[in-house]
Amino acid sequence: MPGKKYEEKHLVTYYEGDQTGTMTISMMINVMILISDNQSQALGVGPEVVDQTGLGWVITQYTMNITRLPQVGEEVLVGTQAVNNNDYFCQRDFWIKDQTGKVIVKTTSIFVLMDRTTRRMHKLLPELIEPYESDKVKRIIRLPKLSDVEGTENSQDYAVRYFDIDTNHHVNNAKYFEWVFNTVDEEVLNNYFPTMVNIRYHVEIQPHQMVHSAVSFDQETLKSSHKISVGDTLCCEANVEWSHR
Amino acid sequence: MPGKKYEEKHLVTYYEGDQTGTMTISMMINVMILISDNQSQALGVGPEVVDQTGLGWVITQYTMNITRLPQVGEEVLVGTQAVNNNDYFCQRDFWIKDQTGKVIVKTTSIFVLMDRTTRRMHKLLPELIEPYESDKVKRIIRLPKLSDVEGTENSQDYAVRYFDIDTNHHVNNAKYFEWVFNTVDEEVLNNYFPTMVNIRYHVEIQPHQMVHSAVSFDQETLKSSHKISVGDTLCCEANVEWSHR
Repeated sequence: MPGKKYEEKHLVTYYEGDQTGTMTISMMINVMILISDNQSQALGVGPEVVDQTGLGWVITQYTMNITRLPQVGEEVLVGTQAVNNNDYFCQRDFWIKDQTGKVIVKTTSIFVLMDRTTRRMHKLLPELIEPYESDKVKRIIRLPKLSDVEGTENSQDYAVRYFDIDTNHHVNNAKYFEWVFNTVDEEVLNNYFPTMVNIRYHVEIQPHQMVHSAVSFDQETLKSSHKISVGDTLCCEANVEWSHR
Repeated sequence: MPGKKYEEKHLVTYYEGDQTGTMTISMMINVMILISDNQSQALGVGPEVVDQTGLGWVITQYTMNITRLPQVGEEVLVGTQAVNNNDYFCQRDFWIKDQTGKVIVKTTSIFVLMDRTTRRMHKLLPELIEPYESDKVKRIIRLPKLSDVEGTENSQDYAVRYFDIDTNHHVNNAKYFEWVFNTVDEEVLNNYFPTMVNIRYHVEIQPHQMVHSAVSFDQETLKSSHKISVGDTLCCEANVEWSHR
């Protein structure tokens, strides 16, 4: 049996939206992670408990499927479920439902435990995992590989700002979405919205670094590929599929 | 009699905080404006009603007095009151109370109505003002003038990003706080917090502009002065007083 589900209402505020009046991807990620933190807290394995083990949860990949973006002023239901895990990896799903109960955003993510000192992956601890009652499996879901798209290219450099850094002292994973989407042509952002996002984190970005965000956008297929790097190090890759608003 | 008061509970989330685990000034402004929008909505003069007049509310100045910053995970009470107004200007106050009822943040702001086409100030419309039941006065409060501080100087350039722009198609006033505070030395941000902020907006910043944010910080008095400009145009000025965390 897959793990426990947890849901909370969320009202989309004006500062979670962009010029088009819909919620930003970055803010959706923030809210989804908040809801999963709240579930962890409710199950007695919140951040304080995890911190004491010297480990920390890290997300390695997200895939998002979006039917439509939540509107500013809309009340949605945000949910999460720790689906299953093997020795090292956990599959955690998220969803956003509108008031009719229709799922408008579906997300699957892979969580791992990282040693906070060595920054290396650590075997999952039963005491941190069991409260979620997720299935123990041999093989966890394999999320789609990232691929390169050919098309119009563009890039931007971003200095990591003080307020981009979270309490773990690295760049919060929601910030990468801002660098990904800010680099896309404004005309695209105004007229299209992402229906699929697949983002994979390779290397954590640190304070004081200079980030290079490159995009290649194919006008015909409405697909784009994104690479975020620091110097010669590829830190993060993403694929996005777009649709007319 | 001063105008109607309005309060809402607010739980400070992890993404509203910074590395120190306290709420950012930018997010406090976002939440205070949200609460005043909610009051307006409750009084039947929400954004949709104002939009129909061809006018829009604009903030020209804020002063904030901060005893302590709200903590991530803390539930606070955020309140607002339209205190009084003359023919052109409104004084609106905000406060944040902790769970003991103690006011930890006090803010006074000046609102004006702007013609959305000409971007010029417009006489206050009785139908947009009366529901707040604020006092009609001859002279409105005069918030402190901005002054220059001498000391260590630093500056940063910021390209206006797509997601800095709000639904009014100019830079949201909370964003200026990020440019102000991001330019301050990291050691100051980690060890001190602002006890007083006085910010004054002169000229709206538009999409595609390049912003220059300069700070002068006096180590002895723990005061700083800030100027945000686009080319030769001074767009915004701020004074900040700091205290040890």
